[in-house]
Amino acid sequence: MKKNSIILYIVGILLLFESAFLLLPMLVSFIYSDGNWMWYLITAGICLALGFPLTRIKPGKNLSLKEGYIIVALCWLVLSLVGALPFVMSGDIPDYLDALFETVSGFTTTGASILSDVEVLSRSGMFWRSFMHWVGGMGVFMFMMAVLPMLGTSDMNLMKAESTGPSVERIVPHVRDTARLMYGMYFGITLAEIISLLISGMDLYSSMLLTFGSVGTGGFGLLNSSCGAYTSAQQLIIAFFMAASGINYTFYFFIISGKIKEAFHIEEVKYYIGIIIVSTLVIAANIGRFFGSPSEALRTAFFQVSSIITTTGYSTADFDTWPELSRMILLLLMMIGGCSGSTAGGIKVYRIVLLMKQFKKELSVLRHPREVKVLRMDGGTVKESVMRSTNVFVSIYIVIFFISLILISVENYDFTTGFTAVAATINNIGPGLSMVGPACNYGFFSGFSKVILIFDMLTGRLELFPVLLLFSMMNPRITHRRFRKK
Amino acid sequence: MKKNSIILYIVGILLLFESAFLLLPMLVSFIYSDGNWMWYLITAGICLALGFPLTRIKPGKNLSLKEGYIIVALCWLVLSLVGALPFVMSGDIPDYLDALFETVSGFTTTGASILSDVEVLSRSGMFWRSFMHWVGGMGVFMFMMAVLPMLGTSDMNLMKAESTGPSVERIVPHVRDTARLMYGMYFGITLAEIISLLISGMDLYSSMLLTFGSVGTGGFGLLNSSCGAYTSAQQLIIAFFMAASGINYTFYFFIISGKIKEAFHIEEVKYYIGIIIVSTLVIAANIGRFFGSPSEALRTAFFQVSSIITTTGYSTADFDTWPELSRMILLLLMMIGGCSGSTAGGIKVYRIVLLMKQFKKELSVLRHPREVKVLRMDGGTVKESVMRSTNVFVSIYIVIFFISLILISVENYDFTTGFTAVAATINNIGPGLSMVGPACNYGFFSGFSKVILIFDMLTGRLELFPVLLLFSMMNPRITHRRFRKK
Repeated sequence: MKKNSIILYIVGILLLFESAFLLLPMLVSFIYSDGNWMWYLITAGICLALGFPLTRIKPGKNLSLKEGYIIVALCWLVLSLVGALPFVMSGDIPDYLDALFETVSGFTTTGASILSDVEVLSRSGMFWRSFMHWVGGMGVFMFMMAVLPMLGTSDMNLMKAESTGPSVERIVPHVRDTARLMYGMYFGITLAEIISLLISGMDLYSSMLLTFGSVGTGGFGLLNSSCGAYTSAQQLIIAFFMAASGINYTFYFFIISGKIKEAFHIEEVKYYIGIIIVSTLVIAANIGRFFGSPSEALRTAFFQVSSIITTTGYSTADFDTWPELSRMILLLLMMIGGCSGSTAGGIKVYRIVLLMKQFKKELSVLRHPREVKVLRMDGGTVKESVMRSTNVFVSIYIVIFFISLILISVENYDFTTGFTAVAATINNIGPGLSMVGPACNYGFFSGFSKVILIFDMLTGRLELFPVLLLFSMMNPRITHRRFRKK
Repeated sequence: MKKNSIILYIVGILLLFESAFLLLPMLVSFIYSDGNWMWYLITAGICLALGFPLTRIKPGKNLSLKEGYIIVALCWLVLSLVGALPFVMSGDIPDYLDALFETVSGFTTTGASILSDVEVLSRSGMFWRSFMHWVGGMGVFMFMMAVLPMLGTSDMNLMKAESTGPSVERIVPHVRDTARLMYGMYFGITLAEIISLLISGMDLYSSMLLTFGSVGTGGFGLLNSSCGAYTSAQQLIIAFFMAASGINYTFYFFIISGKIKEAFHIEEVKYYIGIIIVSTLVIAANIGRFFGSPSEALRTAFFQVSSIITTTGYSTADFDTWPELSRMILLLLMMIGGCSGSTAGGIKVYRIVLLMKQFKKELSVLRHPREVKVLRMDGGTVKESVMRSTNVFVSIYIVIFFISLILISVENYDFTTGFTAVAATINNIGPGLSMVGPACNYGFFSGFSKVILIFDMLTGRLELFPVLLLFSMMNPRITHRRFRKK
């Protein structure tokens, strides 16, 4: 009983938060008089009615890893299940499963849409849709700070207890202060982008929504052409802030503390910036002939690279029509994803760097068997457990990827569509290639496939394990065995 | 000096063997009087001239893992570099790079061809092409028995020093006897298939060549339609022997020793048979409507499943035209591959089973953190080092896969073509989907892409590390550093 109470308590707290979040689209509805304010109020009421009783039972203080996992998986699920209601009630997205797909896509900062025409959405519905990205981004930081440290095997969070590399502890000693600083930076970057876009001549509504989508690395846009219709300056501002949002926030900790040199010495950040530069140059050269000037090709390449590696998913061009080399580089960037300690999804640059170092080490061991090799990252030794969990992560990632691909293929769409639909959801990007390319949407999939893709979005966002654990506990056979043991 | 001498000595021995192998196509050339006997004789002479001096220096007895790796990588490379010569000299494949592609494809038991019309090959050329599969299959056993055991981290070979699971030691105590038994079984299966095909009414030449291709899990056929033109009985015989060749040979050890129960209790074999049955049934149901009777659909499905999971690559139907579900299942089988301890390629059922068990264990650890879990396979505990090497294998496999995909994509063919071309070569299968489907060939690729695919065939065949090690040692910067250290 005590065990379950903490889970329910936190879900309750979250529902209270969601009821507060829902007041914002309600406000937007008042401003634009689109007549939908009622639905946000009703949903906020539902959140209160569900959440309030749950928070009445004071739970114990201790939280096991298992409970932590179940809580985050439930949080994302409950947030989405309730958050989808206004779409259905207002008629913006009449089908509940479609609305759920859109909401999960929002809160997981994926940005994959089932809408063929986003421009017909009500102003409040569009606001809520983008605002979910921003909330989802905050949730990711909460997840990284509250749950991942319990793992012990992860170096990838911002408040590592036994840190290898740049230790955040040395800068900020307490968890609460870390959280405050993190959210401070998140708000700061958000404000900076909104102001930049306002200065560029964009209206406040568009500036806010595009900022929610880029700072949360989500990717829901306001126009069917995504970001293709904005000015060059506006595109560059968005591209810059997307790239900035995919950087490990430890980088900004260092910048704020005046340790500029240390900031640029974080290996993950160096590789991340390197990958962006190299990919942009190669793609710009590859697509150059389609554009009037090299600078236009460079800007377009940079926008797409920045959008895809951070798993945002905005686009200024239909990269599905680009040559195969550019498409494959973008597909690779989809898999890599942004830095750990950011709102970006994907496998993460940190893990990729670790795998590459492991690769080099294994070869080196073969060449010089007697030398003792240790894996080093950011100047410290990488623990065996971190390397192990990285390898396990990749293996399970592949397994989930292929099972999803097989299940999706029942619908008989082409390989590129199926493969990139899974890649774009499990990595929380949004657009893929072929039938799910940047000029298309996910509306044509069957309900069954949408459920699979919803699962992939959640699993990818929460680094695989929490969702798997939640689903495995829903298996009655296993649950039964668990109870019998007690 | 001593270090290099053992490498050169073994390469020398191998060249002497190759000169003997070359006498067989020479004999075939005499029988069919196709006028090509001279080229095989000349190449055999080249082998002798190169090999004889190398075997004059008697090397030390000790062999390090590094040397073992370099030897196998060099063996496959040298065998292919020389083995390609008769094709060029006879005019069967006039271009040397094409001939090398075909030869590497032969010796790695891949079966990917650059020929658009195989039926115009000379009788001796076609014999040599298929015979390479059979030699390659023998080489794989040599590799498994001589090199993999030195790793210590691999459970996947037939003469494990510290065995988990069914111990071969208990049956056959000495390495030399193991090798004799293994080759005995290999010859036995070969003979059994040739005789079965002869009884079914096939001529000796075709029976032999098809047997080389299926027992070596290669896949070079005699007809442009692969196996589509043979009778149902002949197709079933080939399908059966392909499936039998993908089974861990430990299974046959047990059968021969009368331990039938133990044989069917090898976990890898159980999963392998299970995967074949399930895949066959699902595909047969999925393609049923294209065939006149359920038995025809079943036979066609079984043939393709057996061919793909064993990484052979024969076909009786153009599965590229099948529905997406069947195509994706076949793609998954391409990745899985056959059993360890067989001539099949791919990731191997053993590794897949280990990854699945690891997955289950990680979930179980989350659910019951206090219980101590160990990974068990075939009744024994799986060592941490085995699990680690499996994870490292998968990670490096993915890295090589994606780098190859990017490099191939420079040519701007569609995603399915590029992806399955890499999958079909790194897993040593042969045909992929789309432009490299079973009705197509690899001839259209540029020289650059062919080199990449040759690299993938070798890397896949030798379980990644040997080829990588060889290439990394060819890097002058690294070699230089190595010498300076001494």
